[in-house]
Amino acid sequence: MVPNGEDSHKGKSSGEVIQIQLPPHHNFSRQVSLETGFAALNAEANRGKNAAFSPRGAKDRRILSRNGKSLGITTGAVAGADGVRKGDFSMFRTKSTLHKQLSMLPIRKESGFDLQNADGSSAGGGGGESGREESINQSVPAGRYFAALRGPELDEVKDSEDILLPTDQIWPFLLRFPINCFGICLGLGSQTILWQSLSTNPAMSFLHIPPYINTAIWFLALLTLVSVSLTYALKTAFFLEAVRREYFHPVRINFFFAPWISCMFLAIGAPPSLAPARLHPAVWCALFAPVFVLELKIYGQWLSGGKRRLCKLANPSSHLSVVGNFVGAVLAARVGWGEAGKFLWAIGIAHYLCVFVTLYQRLPTSQTLPKELHPVYCMFIATPSAASLAWNAIYGEFDAVARTFYFIALFLYTSLIVRINFFRGFKFSVAWWSYTFPMTTASMAAIKYAEEVPTILSKGLALGLAVISSAIVSSLFISTLLHGFVWCSLFPNDLAIAISRSKHSSSARNIKIAKDTKSASASRSRYDNLRRWAKKSLIPTAIDHHSSGHDSDDKRCTL
Amino acid sequence: MVPNGEDSHKGKSSGEVIQIQLPPHHNFSRQVSLETGFAALNAEANRGKNAAFSPRGAKDRRILSRNGKSLGITTGAVAGADGVRKGDFSMFRTKSTLHKQLSMLPIRKESGFDLQNADGSSAGGGGGESGREESINQSVPAGRYFAALRGPELDEVKDSEDILLPTDQIWPFLLRFPINCFGICLGLGSQTILWQSLSTNPAMSFLHIPPYINTAIWFLALLTLVSVSLTYALKTAFFLEAVRREYFHPVRINFFFAPWISCMFLAIGAPPSLAPARLHPAVWCALFAPVFVLELKIYGQWLSGGKRRLCKLANPSSHLSVVGNFVGAVLAARVGWGEAGKFLWAIGIAHYLCVFVTLYQRLPTSQTLPKELHPVYCMFIATPSAASLAWNAIYGEFDAVARTFYFIALFLYTSLIVRINFFRGFKFSVAWWSYTFPMTTASMAAIKYAEEVPTILSKGLALGLAVISSAIVSSLFISTLLHGFVWCSLFPNDLAIAISRSKHSSSARNIKIAKDTKSASASRSRYDNLRRWAKKSLIPTAIDHHSSGHDSDDKRCTL
Amino acid sequence: MVPNGEDSHKGKSSGEVIQIQLPPHHNFSRQVSLETGFAALNAEANRGKNAAFSPRGAKDRRILSRNGKSLGITTGAVAGADGVRKGDFSMFRTKSTLHKQLSMLPIRKESGFDLQNADGSSAGGGGGESGREESINQSVPAGRYFAALRGPELDEVKDSEDILLPTDQIWPFLLRFPINCFGICLGLGSQTILWQSLSTNPAMSFLHIPPYINTAIWFLALLTLVSVSLTYALKTAFFLEAVRREYFHPVRINFFFAPWISCMFLAIGAPPSLAPARLHPAVWCALFAPVFVLELKIYGQWLSGGKRRLCKLANPSSHLSVVGNFVGAVLAARVGWGEAGKFLWAIGIAHYLCVFVTLYQRLPTSQTLPKELHPVYCMFIATPSAASLAWNAIYGEFDAVARTFYFIALFLYTSLIVRINFFRGFKFSVAWWSYTFPMTTASMAAIKYAEEVPTILSKGLALGLAVISSAIVSSLFISTLLHGFVWCSLFPNDLAIAISRSKHSSSARNIKIAKDTKSASASRSRYDNLRRWAKKSLIPTAIDHHSSGHDSDDKRCTL
Repeated sequence: MVPNGEDSHKGKSSGEVIQIQLPPHHNFSRQVSLETGFAALNAEANRGKNAAFSPRGAKDRRILSRNGKSLGITTGAVAGADGVRKGDFSMFRTKSTLHKQLSMLPIRKESGFDLQNADGSSAGGGGGESGREESINQSVPAGRYFAALRGPELDEVKDSEDILLPTDQIWPFLLRFPINCFGICLGLGSQTILWQSLSTNPAMSFLHIPPYINTAIWFLALLTLVSVSLTYALKTAFFLEAVRREYFHPVRINFFFAPWISCMFLAIGAPPSLAPARLHPAVWCALFAPVFVLELKIYGQWLSGGKRRLCKLANPSSHLSVVGNFVGAVLAARVGWGEAGKFLWAIGIAHYLCVFVTLYQRLPTSQTLPKELHPVYCMFIATPSAASLAWNAIYGEFDAVARTFYFIALFLYTSLIVRINFFRGFKFSVAWWSYTFPMTTASMAAIKYAEEVPTILSKGLALGLAVISSAIVSSLFISTLLHGFVWCSLFPNDLAIAISRSKHSSSARNIKIAKDTKSASASRSRYDNLRRWAKKSLIPTAIDHHSSGHDSDDKRCTL
Repeated sequence: MVPNGEDSHKGKSSGEVIQIQLPPHHNFSRQVSLETGFAALNAEANRGKNAAFSPRGAKDRRILSRNGKSLGITTGAVAGADGVRKGDFSMFRTKSTLHKQLSMLPIRKESGFDLQNADGSSAGGGGGESGREESINQSVPAGRYFAALRGPELDEVKDSEDILLPTDQIWPFLLRFPINCFGICLGLGSQTILWQSLSTNPAMSFLHIPPYINTAIWFLALLTLVSVSLTYALKTAFFLEAVRREYFHPVRINFFFAPWISCMFLAIGAPPSLAPARLHPAVWCALFAPVFVLELKIYGQWLSGGKRRLCKLANPSSHLSVVGNFVGAVLAARVGWGEAGKFLWAIGIAHYLCVFVTLYQRLPTSQTLPKELHPVYCMFIATPSAASLAWNAIYGEFDAVARTFYFIALFLYTSLIVRINFFRGFKFSVAWWSYTFPMTTASMAAIKYAEEVPTILSKGLALGLAVISSAIVSSLFISTLLHGFVWCSLFPNDLAIAISRSKHSSSARNIKIAKDTKSASASRSRYDNLRRWAKKSLIPTAIDHHSSGHDSDDKRCTL
Repeated sequence: MVPNGEDSHKGKSSGEVIQIQLPPHHNFSRQVSLETGFAALNAEANRGKNAAFSPRGAKDRRILSRNGKSLGITTGAVAGADGVRKGDFSMFRTKSTLHKQLSMLPIRKESGFDLQNADGSSAGGGGGESGREESINQSVPAGRYFAALRGPELDEVKDSEDILLPTDQIWPFLLRFPINCFGICLGLGSQTILWQSLSTNPAMSFLHIPPYINTAIWFLALLTLVSVSLTYALKTAFFLEAVRREYFHPVRINFFFAPWISCMFLAIGAPPSLAPARLHPAVWCALFAPVFVLELKIYGQWLSGGKRRLCKLANPSSHLSVVGNFVGAVLAARVGWGEAGKFLWAIGIAHYLCVFVTLYQRLPTSQTLPKELHPVYCMFIATPSAASLAWNAIYGEFDAVARTFYFIALFLYTSLIVRINFFRGFKFSVAWWSYTFPMTTASMAAIKYAEEVPTILSKGLALGLAVISSAIVSSLFISTLLHGFVWCSLFPNDLAIAISRSKHSSSARNIKIAKDTKSASASRSRYDNLRRWAKKSLIPTAIDHHSSGHDSDDKRCTL
């Protein structure tokens, strides 16, 4: 206990980060995953800095409650010598050194700050711009996300994986604030347009919806967008590396489209009393430019076929990277630039085709999604609905093309509804918000269709879909408020961004068995298990390893 | 010989099935495949019951001709003790126990009777609803069909596979009556529409086809449909398990669309003298509802991406699951529900796109089809032709969209015709019928096109295609009559439904090595072999296996 | 040295090919790759025949400069006995035996001369039409091209591969003349149409382009086409086997469309003063017939799914096999056969869909293209541009469909331009020409669009694209002239056609190490190294291999 106490004291007295960047091939990198026990101590040291962001961190930490008993002298000494701490949140912090000056430009986060590192998905893409002392900042290869994470949103960590940050305490708020939060803006923004349609569309005039509902929701959506954007801007400013990791995450990357789509939703759904009848084209230019840059980036990755090729990355969230074109086309029609809208529609349809076929084929390479359906499947509805609306907006008629897309959306909607029981049993997360705007878009398309084909059935369908989407958004809104302000559980630790860059299977010291090539996998899995166990109990080297006979565990034992 | 004779006598004297359901992990299940020799005896015992279905069984059996010489005392005794027989057809029989009451509802066979077992393609999906005593009734995993079967229609059994039923006798007629027989209805039903077009279309008026040909074919098709439906309903009632196995068969599943498409063909092709000018929409509702339910089921399987994902299942027969939408759209236009037709067209085109691209890509995962072309490739023509006809029926003009699909069909037709020599050398089967309706659909589209573009060439093409399709249907009709009533070879044993649920790969000797943990997978497979072996012969370990030398030949040596 | 001299003398004195066809399973096939040293000698023997084609061959040969020192008695004796020579160019020569009479029909090269061998991609497809004494003439399996070659155009040979022809001398000119040369005709032919558009289109009338530029380019393109065609016809006549190998090459096969597309370009772009206002339909028939035959062949290969299935073969060059349909559709509209044009457009769009989706998915099976972009990616622009132009030509209006395709092309163009830095660093090759016509097609579509939507932006875009494409074609023309006539480096040895039919990994005679089964791959690579080393130095087996220890370094040690 004494060394542990010493170390604890030392960590506190030092009061700042000792060493952040880990040399990639250095043995210390093992330390990071080993010393979960020290993480809490270091977090304490970081407290002064992070207090503003994690006000509830203190009461959740149970320092040394489980790893204080067997921590031997060796470990303490090594830790003291190395001074590398797991749970050192500043490893995700924006660097202030000279070659990292781009972190001062938060706006670059969406505009492809990593063009030089763009296709840096090559597994062995070590060196790079800033040498080996920045190994943590290097982009995590695409394959690692799939290997280390699971779940339809790739947000859960597999049991066998290490996490760079401590899992037994609450991280700083900004680190726990994922890009998915823009889904809230998507959901509220699309509701704005829906209620605008409900109040102005002649097919829905029998409902007598007053226009001020649209106005109220619009202001709520605007408020949400501003606050989420500000918060994420802060995250970009302070934890650029975490943003980078979200940018390379196969699912999260698509959410980088969400802020701009939300803005476009707000521009389209602006109350007539506030906005001019025809918006200025500059609005469209300003809002679509970042989407266009992101698209050039992402579609180019698909096409050039590195590790981030479509057949591997495709997941329902990929629809988000396509639907922006259609929303942009609607906005282009609103500002009077019909040809620009047609341009966007063409881009959208070409890539929607690829995404749709790829997702329907369910190539064996796309093993990420579990068999069960999940709210993320709602994304399938979004793009055809938006394509239908966009065609109608651009070409001015709800003709065969628009109807075809609307009906496709309707069939997919039906196909999901009959599997409604699959949707149960998932715990609420902020990502659910992203799955509301497809339903809203579908109900908007249904209203357009009801305007074109005004029958009882079509109007009833439009009304029903609108009710469903509004009900879901309302209940999500309440859930979010409850989780956020009452239960304080809205933002759990965002484990997905804290996976290690490479699976630690590296060098043991006396690898006698390693020469035995026959049982390679068996010994490795045994080694993994031991490693995990060792991580928890931190047994000193006094344990007789030779008697145990597993040489590959030596490393763990001596550290 | 004496014990064998005894056993034979015993089998006869017992005169009924002794034990049907096999516990999955019980050793007796090996017996099923081992004792082919006894199967004939038991079949004899079953004769009284099955006589109505297999009248020619007797002359084909050569009882004990090959296994009478080395059948030792032990095996005979064991067999006598166990009394489990291969070739016990009642393992496919509808269960009458309480939890199987759904077998009393034959209508449920198409409407997704296995919604609870729908994605039951999980390999290890053991337990399930009815416990382990019904292992045979569990759905066969999708991968097994591909592993155990071969041929473009997955209807031939690989040499290395066991068959649950005896291959040396003729099975009951109902067991040999496959779902493919509805292909006859498809072929005749589409001919009905063709001859209706020939007699009424102005572009074909120069032929002066009398309308009564349409009437005659229509009644013939109706008769066929009724008899095939009745027979299959009987099969559903008596051998529900066999129907279940057809339902899970990757190719056969698509034929479950065939009855309803045939009905729609008959509704569309009804002679004007018999049917009103405009059918009642209830006809469309009644006929399309089962197709819609099946589609929700199958497209959902593709999308949710279990073992039955599109990239694995896709084969030319998948067109059958798409073409129903277009036929339904034509019928919807006939009953005056244009919007419903557009809805179906949209569903159809979206999934046709996926199927078309997937089949053209020929993903490496789809290894089922041999390199040689086969009549099943005719399916490629069906969907674009039907899409063209449906667009014309819904939107009232043979415009660019309809022409594009028609021309695609025409090109694929040409592409198949120039490979005509690949079509030779296949022996006739009832599945051929399914490959006639694409040609008929293509000729109908050609007639529509000739109506729109009345040139010599287009009329000649329409006439030529009509002649080809009618000639093929006629020759198939004659072949079917010959095979059915003269040669009595129309329905061979339907081996595809009798594959075992898991691969029986051969035997090992003694399990001591299984404790060796190093070679885990090797020992596991060896263990599996042993388990199966033990299951197979139930011979006490006293038997000298080392003297036999070739364990995997045990079956032949001792029988 | 003595045996070598003898052999050299013998090679000269015989003055003709001794033995060409190698029995496939015979040990002599090893000799082919072994005796690089003799290749030069035999080439000398061939000199009289090939002198016309390789005027610069003499100065590049350094006969026996490096392998004369260690050539032992054993090897010489074997070589003398076998008389098989590497570098015997006549192995690619057209056979004059009776069963090879088709080589007398050079016109058959494009019309599918190998229909019987069409799907001869079966790896073990040995025997075939002409028995085992023609193993070299058998088609190389598709997998071999991917295994042995690399680079985006599969024109570089991997280091580990053998080459049937000597790499240290310049081959006959005809052998070095690849089918890619028709790319020059594509580039110039499309320029013809561009300048015709520039001079006649009202949207571009502000440029006042005189029509004689079109005429001048047309004659230049015609001259180029005639000379390239004549040269390639000569190659077909003299080196039919080399043409066959180009035909089976996964990338080159697409270039067999190029001659006919070039012809169609010239027919479309013919100066109004020379050609009638409406061409005769026979022109279209004559020019499109070979394209159609090739398409039936290639699309059939995709569909039937042998080794040459789309998911393996797809590469940007595949666009060449699709774009012909659209060019043919434009020509069909010019000759007044609108329906034929619609037929072609339908074929084109169906297969473009497959190619587009397949390329965008970048299936894991298509590993040929490197991550870096390459001029070959320009092909992506060609097809949508041509589809847009063709739709406009057929249906007479630049409507939503045409615009959608035009905008898709525009987006892909943008997507490539922003990656312009990836295009640097590639050395010039004649294949670059093929990548100019997409840009030209895009600028033609832009002119059409500017005609339809005459704004400053659209006209400026059209002008800009036209300037880019003309500038690139001009610079390529100058580069080609420089490489061809000044630096004489336009046609390097065409290694891609000289790969061996199967990877030689089989057993040599006294390789004792090969019996070590544990380190199979290690020994194989060592063996390969040895083989290569032996090939270069031709050391007799008396050399002590065990003393060297590291066989793989032998090459460097002794050379």
